[in-house]
Amino acid sequence: MKFNAEKETKKIVEFIRKYYRENKLGGAILGISGGKDSGVVAALMVEALGSENVVGVTLPCHSKDKDKVDAKLVSDYYHFELINFDLTNIYDNFQLELTNLGTFTEEEKKNSDINLKPRLRMSALYYLAALYTEVKKKPYLVVGTSNKCELYVGYFTKGGDSVHDIAPISDLTVEEVIEIGKYLKVPDTVLYKTPDDGLSGQSDEEKLGVTYLEIANYMVNPKLVSEKSRRVIERHHRNNQHKFYIPTYRKDE
Amino acid sequence: MKFNAEKETKKIVEFIRKYYRENKLGGAILGISGGKDSGVVAALMVEALGSENVVGVTLPCHSKDKDKVDAKLVSDYYHFELINFDLTNIYDNFQLELTNLGTFTEEEKKNSDINLKPRLRMSALYYLAALYTEVKKKPYLVVGTSNKCELYVGYFTKGGDSVHDIAPISDLTVEEVIEIGKYLKVPDTVLYKTPDDGLSGQSDEEKLGVTYLEIANYMVNPKLVSEKSRRVIERHHRNNQHKFYIPTYRKDE
Repeated sequence: MKFNAEKETKKIVEFIRKYYRENKLGGAILGISGGKDSGVVAALMVEALGSENVVGVTLPCHSKDKDKVDAKLVSDYYHFELINFDLTNIYDNFQLELTNLGTFTEEEKKNSDINLKPRLRMSALYYLAALYTEVKKKPYLVVGTSNKCELYVGYFTKGGDSVHDIAPISDLTVEEVIEIGKYLKVPDTVLYKTPDDGLSGQSDEEKLGVTYLEIANYMVNPKLVSEKSRRVIERHHRNNQHKFYIPTYRKDE
Repeated sequence: MKFNAEKETKKIVEFIRKYYRENKLGGAILGISGGKDSGVVAALMVEALGSENVVGVTLPCHSKDKDKVDAKLVSDYYHFELINFDLTNIYDNFQLELTNLGTFTEEEKKNSDINLKPRLRMSALYYLAALYTEVKKKPYLVVGTSNKCELYVGYFTKGGDSVHDIAPISDLTVEEVIEIGKYLKVPDTVLYKTPDDGLSGQSDEEKLGVTYLEIANYMVNPKLVSEKSRRVIERHHRNNQHKFYIPTYRKDE
């Protein structure tokens, strides 16, 4: 069945409005990376709640300035407030505190460092959501920007970008997110930017070893992708199961 | 049915060992607050994996020194490594960064501040788990210390103490945790310490407005607690549902 961007956009907007209405919520806070997912989610939230109820946050951490410029493209286009919360000093203090425990090589710290940033971002978004809730006297939610393809291969940080209060596009493939973005006129620079985490210096697809299109096709039918890509996708999916499932002891088992 | 501490302890230990064995895991990292839950979980992990595979972390953040002393009581008794990762400077840098966004009152920042600390603790525990995984060349998990009563009333921080890789006591009431603690000889100072979050200056039970025993009794049968306590428990449970459930848009709905 062909994806109908107009119809899906309307359904998502109604889904957001209904949840806000039923739970007496007020505003939305989300990280704006300058990429497609956060651009499309921002556009959806503005459509659903009005630009005056949406706050975008740039969260640089030793980051490229280009991302901030593209984030501003989105906030200018949809007229929502964009604030900057720089994590660089906080991150550096984390590193400094670590020196009390010993000296570690870059290689030893690599995984720790890469995943620390999304956790600090999540902490900052929730910090700001609680602050805005008090200041504006209405509840603000942290909005998730993960899409279905990233989730399938577990391409997210547990306790980082996976923590949020509402998930508007997590059932949409990357191609479907782009369709929604085209319908909502998300600026091309943002919509067609090569996705990367802004952390590792590699694009997402380089890191994953497959394209998002292959992941989307795989989810429709594994036979649509090459044997090699199928194996890569299945390996990611399998190796990241621990991000979805917390083993929990039960008395009656 | 009477709770059999010896039998449950053995079952929990086997549950942990099995998960570690099946997933080729190595070590365990957990925050040691100096209170009952982390004391009992540390004892269980040492029993399951051996003290050489358990690392306790004290995570002070403008905190009382007393907690560190009690944490050391636990690590000395069970002979596991105890390291200190001080979050004070990281927390202060967060506050400092906020001044770029404006001036806010203590009242406006209160909720933000209280919940920031568990999120920084989680970030530090995952940071250290990834580091130990590299340094010791075997995977370390972050171990959860939430009990069933806290979870029922939603007394935890989303993206904070609720993020972990294995949950050994989340199906045990506070009284059952104490029974396990007595069986494993957790020091009395730790086992019978008044639970508090070390953040707000109030005890958990003061903050909640009910006792953990009342929550445990309520879960057996709501009629076992007073009308007033029943209402308080049900209000917490209802108001914190959003911590368990992320509203997610689905295409086919």
